[in-house]
Amino acid sequence: MSPAQARERFRTGERVPTAGWCQGWTQANLIAVPKRLRYELLLFAHRNPQACPVLDIGEPGAWSTELFGGDLRTDLPGYRLYRGGEAVADLDDVVAEWREDLVPFLIGCSFTFERALLNAGVPVRHLESGTNVPMYVTSVPCRSTGSLSGPLVVSMRPIPGELVRTAIEVSGRYPLVHGAPVHIGDPAAIGVDDLARPDYGDPVEVRTGEVPVFWACGVTPQAAVLASGIDFAIGHLPGHMAIMDVRDDDYLEP
Amino acid sequence: MSPAQARERFRTGERVPTAGWCQGWTQANLIAVPKRLRYELLLFAHRNPQACPVLDIGEPGAWSTELFGGDLRTDLPGYRLYRGGEAVADLDDVVAEWREDLVPFLIGCSFTFERALLNAGVPVRHLESGTNVPMYVTSVPCRSTGSLSGPLVVSMRPIPGELVRTAIEVSGRYPLVHGAPVHIGDPAAIGVDDLARPDYGDPVEVRTGEVPVFWACGVTPQAAVLASGIDFAIGHLPGHMAIMDVRDDDYLEP
Repeated sequence: MSPAQARERFRTGERVPTAGWCQGWTQANLIAVPKRLRYELLLFAHRNPQACPVLDIGEPGAWSTELFGGDLRTDLPGYRLYRGGEAVADLDDVVAEWREDLVPFLIGCSFTFERALLNAGVPVRHLESGTNVPMYVTSVPCRSTGSLSGPLVVSMRPIPGELVRTAIEVSGRYPLVHGAPVHIGDPAAIGVDDLARPDYGDPVEVRTGEVPVFWACGVTPQAAVLASGIDFAIGHLPGHMAIMDVRDDDYLEP
Repeated sequence: MSPAQARERFRTGERVPTAGWCQGWTQANLIAVPKRLRYELLLFAHRNPQACPVLDIGEPGAWSTELFGGDLRTDLPGYRLYRGGEAVADLDDVVAEWREDLVPFLIGCSFTFERALLNAGVPVRHLESGTNVPMYVTSVPCRSTGSLSGPLVVSMRPIPGELVRTAIEVSGRYPLVHGAPVHIGDPAAIGVDDLARPDYGDPVEVRTGEVPVFWACGVTPQAAVLASGIDFAIGHLPGHMAIMDVRDDDYLEP
């Protein structure tokens, strides 16, 4: 399926996590903030590049970008609306909420390297189970800016012990879509108490002989919006990504 | 010599290119713009990361940053003042020109990896001759933003043919201070007509058997200020860098 075909399905109402969709095409997190916050957000991304790799930024009020040819207000399978530092609604589209001064940022997503993991023989459990990837709010603080601070959010994939090194190597070749893992093995070390209860997405089984491997996650800016009491922002529904018009191989480091 | 000692000498009047100074410590380009332009500049840097790797950014009006403990108004050996898109003065200090709304950006500099080149047996001609590095305005356009556009500026080092590969490998390990070369061998291919007449800095001899190797240069934002008619900005005098309180090894990729 092409990105345009997938986006049409989302535009016409399908609300589904996008892991495994449009294999070979880049997926991205959305965070749109009022123009007066765009410097802060870009600075926050610059200071936290592994969690917030910026792939593209739109002009104020625009609902497409150079690398995303669809309509950012309708063509993601789900949205989350923030007001006054709280998540106030999950929506199928944000046509009514999109303001003239909103600046959309598209942030890299680790779904982008999952095809490469599979090709290298590394299983991806949430693809096997057809569910959303589990994501966790950690106790690791991001580098803050004047008005944005918050915790690192991570995604988790259980990897057979003998394949952990392969998973590190393969994902490390995609630095702009989170790259190598930020933690391996001990959830408690990063403040994750219960793998069975992710903060976003769905839990997955961790089998005997498998190690939980954590990657930085592009939901991190949404956690900062929450933690910082930002008055207005629009994000994607975690796991329900923007499917872009660039190939995952475009983010493969030469 | 420590960075603090070098900065004191510059503060008390020494105007000298900083190549070879404080070996082992990171050097940086300065570009300070009014607050209303800081988003545009950060976006320009984000879109041109090889030429404009941002090492640190100060708060509006601040004259030091987290990684630069000196006084940005006095502790560089030379400054260039821009008004109305023109370079209007070269100054020993900019105390009188520093405005409350100025936001200083420190951008990586290729001087930072010259020690590593020397340690790998790669000669650096401008260090041998005790002159400033030659820099050239190329015909290669940067990726623009709404209000910033301009040409890529490069520095040039003549490298013996058999050591070009080493120079690529060594500098490539320092991606945040321009990394690997952007061009090798044919000045005309990037719009450089006469190596003997650099746009900034001093010419150096290119000997038989040597190849001109070009690295992206942190003077690029100043070229954009000129090309874009920006009404006010302060830069360093090219080659007369900010010597920071971080080590060049901090920018060595693991």
